[in-house]
Amino acid sequence: MEKPLWRPDRNSQIPLHLQITEYLRDKIAGGEWTVGTRLPSQRSLAESFGVNRSTVVAALGELAAAGMIEGGRGGGTKVVNHTWGVLASTPPPDWNAYVSAGIHYPNLPAVQEINRSEFHPGLLRLGTGELSPELLPREEMSRLLRRMADHVPDLGYGEPNGDLFLRELLASRMNSQGIKASPECILIVSGALQALQLISVGLLQRGSTVLLERPSYLYSVPVFQSAGMKLQGVPMDEDGLRPELVAPYAKQYGGALLYTIPTFHNPTGIVMSQQRRNRLLEVCQKAGLPILEDDVYRDLWLDEPPPAPLKAGDSSGVVLYMSSLSKTLSPGLRIGWITGPQPVIERLADIKMQSDYGSSAFSQRLAAECLSSGMYEAHMESLRTKLGLRRQAALDSLQRHFGEGLAEWSIPNGGFYIWLKLNRTAAPRKLFDAALKQGILINPGHLYDPEAGNRIRISYAYASLDELESGLARLAEIVASL
Amino acid sequence: MEKPLWRPDRNSQIPLHLQITEYLRDKIAGGEWTVGTRLPSQRSLAESFGVNRSTVVAALGELAAAGMIEGGRGGGTKVVNHTWGVLASTPPPDWNAYVSAGIHYPNLPAVQEINRSEFHPGLLRLGTGELSPELLPREEMSRLLRRMADHVPDLGYGEPNGDLFLRELLASRMNSQGIKASPECILIVSGALQALQLISVGLLQRGSTVLLERPSYLYSVPVFQSAGMKLQGVPMDEDGLRPELVAPYAKQYGGALLYTIPTFHNPTGIVMSQQRRNRLLEVCQKAGLPILEDDVYRDLWLDEPPPAPLKAGDSSGVVLYMSSLSKTLSPGLRIGWITGPQPVIERLADIKMQSDYGSSAFSQRLAAECLSSGMYEAHMESLRTKLGLRRQAALDSLQRHFGEGLAEWSIPNGGFYIWLKLNRTAAPRKLFDAALKQGILINPGHLYDPEAGNRIRISYAYASLDELESGLARLAEIVASL
Repeated sequence: MEKPLWRPDRNSQIPLHLQITEYLRDKIAGGEWTVGTRLPSQRSLAESFGVNRSTVVAALGELAAAGMIEGGRGGGTKVVNHTWGVLASTPPPDWNAYVSAGIHYPNLPAVQEINRSEFHPGLLRLGTGELSPELLPREEMSRLLRRMADHVPDLGYGEPNGDLFLRELLASRMNSQGIKASPECILIVSGALQALQLISVGLLQRGSTVLLERPSYLYSVPVFQSAGMKLQGVPMDEDGLRPELVAPYAKQYGGALLYTIPTFHNPTGIVMSQQRRNRLLEVCQKAGLPILEDDVYRDLWLDEPPPAPLKAGDSSGVVLYMSSLSKTLSPGLRIGWITGPQPVIERLADIKMQSDYGSSAFSQRLAAECLSSGMYEAHMESLRTKLGLRRQAALDSLQRHFGEGLAEWSIPNGGFYIWLKLNRTAAPRKLFDAALKQGILINPGHLYDPEAGNRIRISYAYASLDELESGLARLAEIVASL
Repeated sequence: MEKPLWRPDRNSQIPLHLQITEYLRDKIAGGEWTVGTRLPSQRSLAESFGVNRSTVVAALGELAAAGMIEGGRGGGTKVVNHTWGVLASTPPPDWNAYVSAGIHYPNLPAVQEINRSEFHPGLLRLGTGELSPELLPREEMSRLLRRMADHVPDLGYGEPNGDLFLRELLASRMNSQGIKASPECILIVSGALQALQLISVGLLQRGSTVLLERPSYLYSVPVFQSAGMKLQGVPMDEDGLRPELVAPYAKQYGGALLYTIPTFHNPTGIVMSQQRRNRLLEVCQKAGLPILEDDVYRDLWLDEPPPAPLKAGDSSGVVLYMSSLSKTLSPGLRIGWITGPQPVIERLADIKMQSDYGSSAFSQRLAAECLSSGMYEAHMESLRTKLGLRRQAALDSLQRHFGEGLAEWSIPNGGFYIWLKLNRTAAPRKLFDAALKQGILINPGHLYDPEAGNRIRISYAYASLDELESGLARLAEIVASL
């Protein structure tokens, strides 16, 4: 559980431990910590309150004496009654049962921990799949916000498919990449993850199987599993997904959809060759197997532009195409899009209206300003240079610290990731914990492939150059010591 | 299906019908209109292309001759082949089967039609549950956007629970309404509808029953049904939900949650009395039945502030509380929030991270600016005056046109709605269609209660005063003529 954000007032006349007692009493009586809730440890409470542990012990003693909490043998302290002094006649609903009853899968524990840890200052984040704040265009955004102030977007509910101006800009952008997309066949979503969520509940039956690369980003989010679908990995090689396996796998596992990241694949960084793309389209068209193309890394090429999207070669509507501005411009914008057959887009738009009545009008308009002003292109150009330097620095550090037989890796041509292969096996959880203890947050390989225990996803996009060097040095020591 | 947004070029050398043929061919060959897709009618195509119907007929003739489309007997025109001239050897995936296979329910047809119609200019919208553009604080937003340009929010991914500054502001706001909420027990969501969506998949088992007022807004969105839950209405009277029925209904139908809008209920406008609130809390605490309090209309009081939220009287954590800025400030912001027991909030935050990685950082920061600058309070004060005038105008118009025995209604003390009861029965669909034909969009009662066929939800928040008068006059004629 997250620790409280409150702190006692050191200038108050009331003793610290009584302030804490009162605060915790209110938290329990007010229903934030219901009966059955397990309290954070004394140590962590003392830390978040900024007091000695003995002060916390005194406060907890008062609450225990009043019958509100009970220390367990080894099991920590739990809330047992929500009223002070008298046993409540009617217990509140058992929220913990509700929390575990819901349909949706929780995030993987390691992912939950990563989500939380990412906001602890001081942690060195070696695997984060996001641009470092210093790479984000703050000044340009500030300029565009000022422009937006003169053209405030419509403050009302938006159209089901999203802001028309933004859709027109995206249509013309995709056209330049070889994709023929009309604005009415584009749906604006709150990031690519929402596209996956809508597709999971909008197009597939419970029990269907989604084929995907193995490893894949998709293994790290239980979005399809929560909707009752199964994932079936298809092996890759250095040119990407192996198309000759798709039809047999689809047949054997009853695949209903193939999810692929053909360009700067997450986590391997691989770019599917043009030949493979043609072959994959052919195979899927023949099998009547729809492809979901996730193209969020396309604009992050470093050496040369990647081959055209699968969707550009799609002459029969077999490809649903999704992308986003989160990896290139600003994750906080929460703007992505899908394009594909019109009935599919309308179905997904209808579900989106039922999920959140559309994406933020401000984010949509700001995204449109970024694209229409030329800011996006200029930003991408400068970003490529900076990312290129970071990639080189990461490769140099890897060579220095892992080069002597500790690990192997390939050089990515774009995107964020290096898919590090350790030459010794370590229990992934142990490695994760050991690194975290030293202040390093890593994305272990098993998040992307249950069997890739000896892999680590390294990102050269987030940590600073200094952090990459010192973090990889320390990580190498940890790996060597395990 | 939405009509194409494209129009042929009247200055081009190429005849109009050939431009249209080419456009439609590309749409089919590019996979936007896949095999099996039904084309819009000739009339509606002619309208959207801005040409005569004969031009459309000529273009469709070319496509039919090339074997791409086929006219049905009465069933309209369908795409039958995605290549020009030759029958494609491999048909694309049957997307229409996918569209109907998904788990999530489509919106009710009438709701889909309303969603779409709301963006047709010129329609007179008598039931829209949203502030008219003229009531939205555009100028103030422009000022705040300029301020935001000097303090660009963090462009990266946000914390799982949402922007901390915004959560602190909401906590202090709720505190002033009697609700003790800590920032760590608040989750920012993209509007109240997303709160419902997260709760539906996060806290309830498939097959559970949600109790709710009958009628209720919740009947108009299949969010719980899509997650496999049932709805069971509990009767209301003029003081709101009848608490004495809650325990028996919960027992009989196995209720797992009670959803209620105790303040300016949608669609009836009813405010639950203080006595009822106390009784309802007691009943639910005793039955261990969690309450989901939807309080999005609270700040829209017109005569006097409503009683405190249920959550303010909750001493054991039986209430989950949700609200939003969509009804008061700007729907386009897409900002709402939930507060309740910490384990519940953390569960919902985890699912939100899996759905869209958090709400727009720009919307969150703008919402925080609105609250912290005092703009929100000033806006609400001026809004109340304007809404009060609108309410009076609507009541006057109703009296003029429906007063002679055509309908009955109560006077709401706040919110947006008048729940009109017609004294004659008309098939709701017939009424809806007849009104739409005359350019009037209404929200028929059966959206909120399958049996309320003789009800119409009137909103005095959206249409202008002139429109309210002329729209209600025409509506009365339609009702009288049916």
